[in-house]
Amino acid sequence: MCPDQGQFSRVRRVDGRIFSFVLLFCHYLLDGFTQLVSLAVNWKGICISLLVIAVVLSLIGLSIFLLSRGEALYRSNEGQSSMKDECRMYLIGEIIFRSWDGDILKVSTHSNETELLLKNTTFSTFKATKFSISPDLNYVLLGYDVKQIFQHSFLASYLIYNLYTREVQELNPPEVSDSVLQFASWGIQGQRLVIIFVLQIYIFENNIYYQADVQSSSWRLTSSGQEGGIFNGIADWLYEEEVLHTQVAHWWSPDSSRLAYLSINDSLVPNMLLPRLTGSLYPRGKEYPYPKMGQMNPTVRLYVVTLDGSSLTTELRPPDSFKKSEYYITMVKWVAQDKLSVRWVTRAQNMSILSLCDVTTSDCTKKHVATSEKWLDRQNEEPVFAKDYTTFFITMPLRHGGRGAFNHITMISNQVNLRHLTSGSWEVSQILAYDESANSLYFLSAEEGSTHRQLYRVSTLDPFHKECLTCALFKSKCTYYDTILSPDYQHVLLNCRVSLLLALTEYKTVEMNVVLRHAMMDKRIPKWERRTVQINDFGRTYTSSSTIYLSTLFHQQLAVSDRFSLGWDSVLVSSDTVIVARLDGRGSGSQGQRILHEVHHRLGTVDVQDQVAAVEHLIRLPYIDGNRVGVYGKAYGGFISTLLLLSHSSMFRCGIAVAPITNWRLHGSAYTEKFFGSPAKEDLKYQVGTCCCENIQ
Amino acid sequence: MCPDQGQFSRVRRVDGRIFSFVLLFCHYLLDGFTQLVSLAVNWKGICISLLVIAVVLSLIGLSIFLLSRGEALYRSNEGQSSMKDECRMYLIGEIIFRSWDGDILKVSTHSNETELLLKNTTFSTFKATKFSISPDLNYVLLGYDVKQIFQHSFLASYLIYNLYTREVQELNPPEVSDSVLQFASWGIQGQRLVIIFVLQIYIFENNIYYQADVQSSSWRLTSSGQEGGIFNGIADWLYEEEVLHTQVAHWWSPDSSRLAYLSINDSLVPNMLLPRLTGSLYPRGKEYPYPKMGQMNPTVRLYVVTLDGSSLTTELRPPDSFKKSEYYITMVKWVAQDKLSVRWVTRAQNMSILSLCDVTTSDCTKKHVATSEKWLDRQNEEPVFAKDYTTFFITMPLRHGGRGAFNHITMISNQVNLRHLTSGSWEVSQILAYDESANSLYFLSAEEGSTHRQLYRVSTLDPFHKECLTCALFKSKCTYYDTILSPDYQHVLLNCRVSLLLALTEYKTVEMNVVLRHAMMDKRIPKWERRTVQINDFGRTYTSSSTIYLSTLFHQQLAVSDRFSLGWDSVLVSSDTVIVARLDGRGSGSQGQRILHEVHHRLGTVDVQDQVAAVEHLIRLPYIDGNRVGVYGKAYGGFISTLLLLSHSSMFRCGIAVAPITNWRLHGSAYTEKFFGSPAKEDLKYQVGTCCCENIQ
Repeated sequence: MCPDQGQFSRVRRVDGRIFSFVLLFCHYLLDGFTQLVSLAVNWKGICISLLVIAVVLSLIGLSIFLLSRGEALYRSNEGQSSMKDECRMYLIGEIIFRSWDGDILKVSTHSNETELLLKNTTFSTFKATKFSISPDLNYVLLGYDVKQIFQHSFLASYLIYNLYTREVQELNPPEVSDSVLQFASWGIQGQRLVIIFVLQIYIFENNIYYQADVQSSSWRLTSSGQEGGIFNGIADWLYEEEVLHTQVAHWWSPDSSRLAYLSINDSLVPNMLLPRLTGSLYPRGKEYPYPKMGQMNPTVRLYVVTLDGSSLTTELRPPDSFKKSEYYITMVKWVAQDKLSVRWVTRAQNMSILSLCDVTTSDCTKKHVATSEKWLDRQNEEPVFAKDYTTFFITMPLRHGGRGAFNHITMISNQVNLRHLTSGSWEVSQILAYDESANSLYFLSAEEGSTHRQLYRVSTLDPFHKECLTCALFKSKCTYYDTILSPDYQHVLLNCRVSLLLALTEYKTVEMNVVLRHAMMDKRIPKWERRTVQINDFGRTYTSSSTIYLSTLFHQQLAVSDRFSLGWDSVLVSSDTVIVARLDGRGSGSQGQRILHEVHHRLGTVDVQDQVAAVEHLIRLPYIDGNRVGVYGKAYGGFISTLLLLSHSSMFRCGIAVAPITNWRLHGSAYTEKFFGSPAKEDLKYQVGTCCCENIQ
Repeated sequence: MCPDQGQFSRVRRVDGRIFSFVLLFCHYLLDGFTQLVSLAVNWKGICISLLVIAVVLSLIGLSIFLLSRGEALYRSNEGQSSMKDECRMYLIGEIIFRSWDGDILKVSTHSNETELLLKNTTFSTFKATKFSISPDLNYVLLGYDVKQIFQHSFLASYLIYNLYTREVQELNPPEVSDSVLQFASWGIQGQRLVIIFVLQIYIFENNIYYQADVQSSSWRLTSSGQEGGIFNGIADWLYEEEVLHTQVAHWWSPDSSRLAYLSINDSLVPNMLLPRLTGSLYPRGKEYPYPKMGQMNPTVRLYVVTLDGSSLTTELRPPDSFKKSEYYITMVKWVAQDKLSVRWVTRAQNMSILSLCDVTTSDCTKKHVATSEKWLDRQNEEPVFAKDYTTFFITMPLRHGGRGAFNHITMISNQVNLRHLTSGSWEVSQILAYDESANSLYFLSAEEGSTHRQLYRVSTLDPFHKECLTCALFKSKCTYYDTILSPDYQHVLLNCRVSLLLALTEYKTVEMNVVLRHAMMDKRIPKWERRTVQINDFGRTYTSSSTIYLSTLFHQQLAVSDRFSLGWDSVLVSSDTVIVARLDGRGSGSQGQRILHEVHHRLGTVDVQDQVAAVEHLIRLPYIDGNRVGVYGKAYGGFISTLLLLSHSSMFRCGIAVAPITNWRLHGSAYTEKFFGSPAKEDLKYQVGTCCCENIQ
């Protein structure tokens, strides 16, 4: 199974780890990070190693069955995904996954039988690089000629391949051939397809098309779509990168009878222009709506269309208090066939309302209001509802003594009755599911450490009845899991995201990555250790985490734990006598609201101080040469790198700032305004180029 | 007097020094150069020093009168300049120049009286940064809100200021106010103006307007002008940067009764897109025709318009042999009121025809055909004609023993009779003037060394009668002059472009830059020395020049000579213990055709070898640390820097490649095709991205 980078990114955002350095330096690409790099770098070696790693990285990970007793029919809630990764699993009594050599396999959860659904050669035959199996397991949608747009979005052409008859048909809108689509995916039942077209002739773009099954012709659900204007069912740049963190802006109802979708109107948003320099002799200009700090944001509307042939479309209106102001829709989740939960967030991101809407009447009920003096994090988080909709679970900041607030599970009944199911100076990462019959709530948490993700179960009747289901597995060596729970709560698919482990016989192992394991046998995989640095600022003491990657050239046997990844830092530590450290200072997530909010209105100050404190601590280590320390950062990380080089030039021998944010005025609205607020109109007019740069001077 | 960088650049190009490293590294900006930089660089120091230098640089130089006997009325031939520099001189019995503190002064050439024409405060009052005095000395054209386009071109708004009444009027096209112009300048008599408008509303752009005097209304001479399409009287990107090396593509007849102009048609030329990132929150895309290697070039036509009110326009057609092929017009020069000399060059740049055209009949006579097996250099060179047009002087390659050909003065009479007036293993830089009554030809040459420019006079009757007029001046300390000869050949304005000299009492000194001299007294001005490196390649021996700039920290009294300039290299050597060397390898000019042509079809091979040989020589010097050598280059220089770093990584500790040419396919046609020829159409189709990159691998 692949490392699902898209999911990883989303998880981190949902976790509110917007400010962990791991994330910050990943703002535009997933391979970014902060690191300390010695100067003695062998570039040729790096290039060769990167190639090797790229090959190796193509399939890595380990999936293990837990609690595997009895037969179960369950599925992931992400059936309508955008085919982001090629190793998604369909859990309908079976697990469908792509094996190391590229075949698509179906494994029975009880009989252990493996069936080949699609041979790897089919991919090369059609030059397909994306795939998605239909929920009825009869077809596979194959995407080819993929062209990346932003972080998540891409254009592609598609084929529908019949797994049994091997018939192939192109996926095209009516009366068009050789189409390039913005999006295509199966529904969550049978063979339903949602297609959003962008054609070479630019007529049908940004509109949703629906096809009831593979043989039917497609049918247009929206007509307002307009390139760079109105986006139906898919995100614009802002929603993709900063609000939803996915290109998908539509949601199937559980029975596939309705489709909820956002209509994002960018008509008044100023356009960003970027030239594309590759692929032809002359660059082509790419214009797209990009609202900068304080500029016009897109407006958003939420519609539900009924797929019974009537195409009846109803709009779900925002709460009254939002009607005259700017807002984002950050979360949409179907709770039942006719019930939709929606989160509306003010543009300032300091107030949000969670509604439950009845799509038959278009009435929405306010279920929860959240406010913050600084900004609200975790606004993509999906609430977990009980069957009668009166009770639901979300995470909320809960004070813990003098250490500020931490996000904990709150059970809310009848809008007023609040009960905290967890507490402590650690954070709940994600609420997974509510087993109503057993009064159990499943969740992932960082209780063992801010970098851990373990699966827990807590009783909704007795919060003291809480147990970690994964902590003791594998002699505790796996500290970071992704999970998929079966709908009957009898099975969980655990994806251990930490380095390679041995299989445990008491669990069903889906994929042990034997080929990869063999390939990596003679590679120098970095070892790492975690250190904490005490930071004292105006009487308050913070603990800053740092991860130090040591080259195996040191032959030190340090603990191997937490999330496994290979990147440029791995190459550096493997190829040369380089030590890489990632530092989490104030502003990083999973450590409570206080550390998160410390950077409010002062990005580039305390976060820089923490980096400095951490480096001062690290260079005291006997094996680190304090005269050969460098710094790397991307986007926000580039901003920090630049500040570090300017303010502590004697500390760093060199630095790399990739696409640094040099002026927050020029950065995307949703991200920047969270930290700096929205500038007054006069400020914008007269202070362009000066705002927010004080720290750079 | 300012260092006229625009002119400097032109002079160097005219000199055929296309390949001197000094120039190569100046391809896009004038401050580029190759240099060896030690790593120990103090950036803060550099910034402060650059500021100081920028101030100091605002006026530097020394102008001295020679041969100053008797009164003379003469003018520069560049009266119709585009106001490129602010220190142009108008020589009408007087010299007009801008003094160190910004005043515009008139100095009589015989009485030594100085008159203030315009106070420096006038510039600040109108925020003017460009100026041009009318030929009748009654008005000054003041340019403000200047926005640079390419290397020479800029947009500006203009005022006409009456030097006597102090009245001010805006320069606008009819019925338009607040216009932004592409070009505005005086004619060469009285108050005539040529204006080329680009308006905010983009209607009149790229058309020539003419105004007979300050009070008249302007009058449109062309109507075909079209933004990014047809350029009348001004150059498109290609003609400005690679063909004419100026934005000016029109020429006044000596009596101002006619105007010759190019009409450059870029309609079929593919557009380059560059985003402009400064000045507003959002980048704006700038599209302009940019023919790459092998792509559609602009077509060019030469017209002459009569300014007697009829606007009668006649076209001067290319020679028959050019009519069916692509060609450039590289030089246009009025020889008399109705005679125009024109040079037509094939697109391959290996054949050119010099014509003399009668503008009344539109008949052109072929005067000289030049061919080359590789490429023709110096195609901007203006021929010097005798009064009867039958005799004229140009430079032509002349073989000198086994060392190949060097450009020497050739006197051509009646099309067939060729006589060489100079010879030797050195090059004539520029033919200045022919004093027919004295049978003397004035010229600048590099006889004393490829980096020198001295003024010579040779008898057209007896070539052995040749004398250097400037070599013995100032104890030979000034080795590089710019000159303006008076039309009666009795005076010459010498502009010594070498470092600061003391005045000699026997000459009239116009400006001694006392203020500057004082300001620089406590600055560490770099000393430099010249070294030659013997290069042996397949049995041939070349001599490569290199200039080494030494920091004054070394306190070595090295010779101070050749052209004075201050730039980043000066800052580096002045601020730190850094030594900077500029290296001239094969491909550089002023050293004969063989060295120039050595890079034909093999840029990035022998030129790289020569850099390596020179560095190998230099690091043997006792005061150079061979372990701390870096390389810097821009454009072509970036290409060479990159190759050096890739092929000789152990030789260089670090390198900077600014805007390196990584693929010649992507570079401008006129420049690239000179070296690589024009690719076949099939090559273009199938090999984009691979051509010319072999050397990089």
